[in-house]
Amino acid sequence: MENFYAELVDSGLVIPTGVKGAYGRGAALEDIIRAFNALVTRIGEADGAQEVLFPPVLPRALIEKMGYMDSFPQLAGSVHSFMGNDAKARELSERVHAGERWEDMLSPTELMLAPAACYPVYPAFSGLLPGGGRLITTMNWVFRHEPSDEPTRLQSFRMREFIRLGKSEDVLAWRDDWLRRGLALLQGLGLPADSDVASDPFFGRVGKMLATNQKEQRLKFEILVPVISKEKPTAVASFNWHQDHFSSKFGIRNSDDTLAQTACMGFGLERVALALVKAHGVDPKAWPQDVRAQLWPAA
Amino acid sequence: MENFYAELVDSGLVIPTGVKGAYGRGAALEDIIRAFNALVTRIGEADGAQEVLFPPVLPRALIEKMGYMDSFPQLAGSVHSFMGNDAKARELSERVHAGERWEDMLSPTELMLAPAACYPVYPAFSGLLPGGGRLITTMNWVFRHEPSDEPTRLQSFRMREFIRLGKSEDVLAWRDDWLRRGLALLQGLGLPADSDVASDPFFGRVGKMLATNQKEQRLKFEILVPVISKEKPTAVASFNWHQDHFSSKFGIRNSDDTLAQTACMGFGLERVALALVKAHGVDPKAWPQDVRAQLWPAA
Repeated sequence: MENFYAELVDSGLVIPTGVKGAYGRGAALEDIIRAFNALVTRIGEADGAQEVLFPPVLPRALIEKMGYMDSFPQLAGSVHSFMGNDAKARELSERVHAGERWEDMLSPTELMLAPAACYPVYPAFSGLLPGGGRLITTMNWVFRHEPSDEPTRLQSFRMREFIRLGKSEDVLAWRDDWLRRGLALLQGLGLPADSDVASDPFFGRVGKMLATNQKEQRLKFEILVPVISKEKPTAVASFNWHQDHFSSKFGIRNSDDTLAQTACMGFGLERVALALVKAHGVDPKAWPQDVRAQLWPAA
Repeated sequence: MENFYAELVDSGLVIPTGVKGAYGRGAALEDIIRAFNALVTRIGEADGAQEVLFPPVLPRALIEKMGYMDSFPQLAGSVHSFMGNDAKARELSERVHAGERWEDMLSPTELMLAPAACYPVYPAFSGLLPGGGRLITTMNWVFRHEPSDEPTRLQSFRMREFIRLGKSEDVLAWRDDWLRRGLALLQGLGLPADSDVASDPFFGRVGKMLATNQKEQRLKFEILVPVISKEKPTAVASFNWHQDHFSSKFGIRNSDDTLAQTACMGFGLERVALALVKAHGVDPKAWPQDVRAQLWPAA
């Protein structure tokens, strides 16, 4: 693991910033990410997904309503700002220069960091769906407070997602179809990818039961690729069937006025890029020709 | 202003989220932003800028060292997370469900939101520059805590920046050149763009003096386009000459070991897109052919 991170830094793919899981990306890594994201767009093009895009901050009220603070309080990022007067600002500045903590002078804003790219999508499509439901695609920076030296475990990273809203049979068939397509896509790029049933990192003792339950119900699948180790492969894509968890909260209904269901699938763009680097080397120009032809078809 | 926002929502360009300055972007708005950003890349291509990319969060220590909390404490966004145990997590969850404030149970992380796309660039290029200096390009989501109903004043938006590091005469000539190129680019897209000397929104009474000083020294220029009103045109690009403010903090030196200077220029991507919508209408397909040909040359 340390060797891989050192290789990433030496080759300029990764630019250290001094904070774990918050490094910068060099031009070559960014080019891989852009190319993979564009390949996903081409593969999904015929499906006619509607694109939406949200900023990396989203309403605090949405995080609360989603139940995120019940299940994943340890991962959430809350945005706080200074709302004081001139005198308080002087005190704040003095504390910064004295090397003292100053953050207790801040107040919570109405915003938190997006923990998943799909979260702001559900409230945006409240109400009746068209016949056949909806398919949405989005990309966003997501935040998870889990500082780590492991280069595939980032505090801030990009997810390219598709979100399906509709009848349960349509939503499930779509999820199964993307699980096949995602595996074929990643294996076709020379990655030893495999899929498995999975669970979310629910917090604490109650969380352990929630995770077991989620696995038993087969609500979450992941596509895994060995990057750091063979024993603990890295999840590079995830597939989540929410049943009516989000649709009931946001009043998303099918065209026949029954309660809709939702599912989402997402690629962790940095993780896919790092898996490709691990498999094919730090210089994309030296990657196998068939892999390059898929990622950079015009080159 | 209210009419313009209503038009943006009705046409699907903007997707309300319930928080001021944190709306979602529809497919057509995103397509304009992508096209303009790509046009900037083509225009700057011959300059051979090195691309780097940083996440929308950056080290708290960097914000402190930059002096940002002295000058703009009111705009900063600090990231706080829950670091407690099982019992505390239960209390947090109960407070959320009771509709009580729960944010005092969080602790500051090592991260803050990026207030400018160029900030993480300077520490990444500490040390000796190559002869002729460096030219860097980056794009990032930046955060400014200034909730507003005005659709061009966002809390979270994207800046496409170029950053020049080198000798003062090179840095200034580069800044002047981009001011001309930026104006030509925006006017060529049918925008009534003009440039002016400007100042940053320094906080408080002392800040007023800093702003006056900045204007007198002509350290900051902006390109302005009327979007919301003719009287108060919107800044869509800015040009900042930092002299040795950042290079001295981060030890950035010319190849002859003299202290380097830095300057940056950036386009506010959402603001440019909204200026184009204001000038040419909510349907990009109906925009003047010569504007479309520049933005979507392959179409």
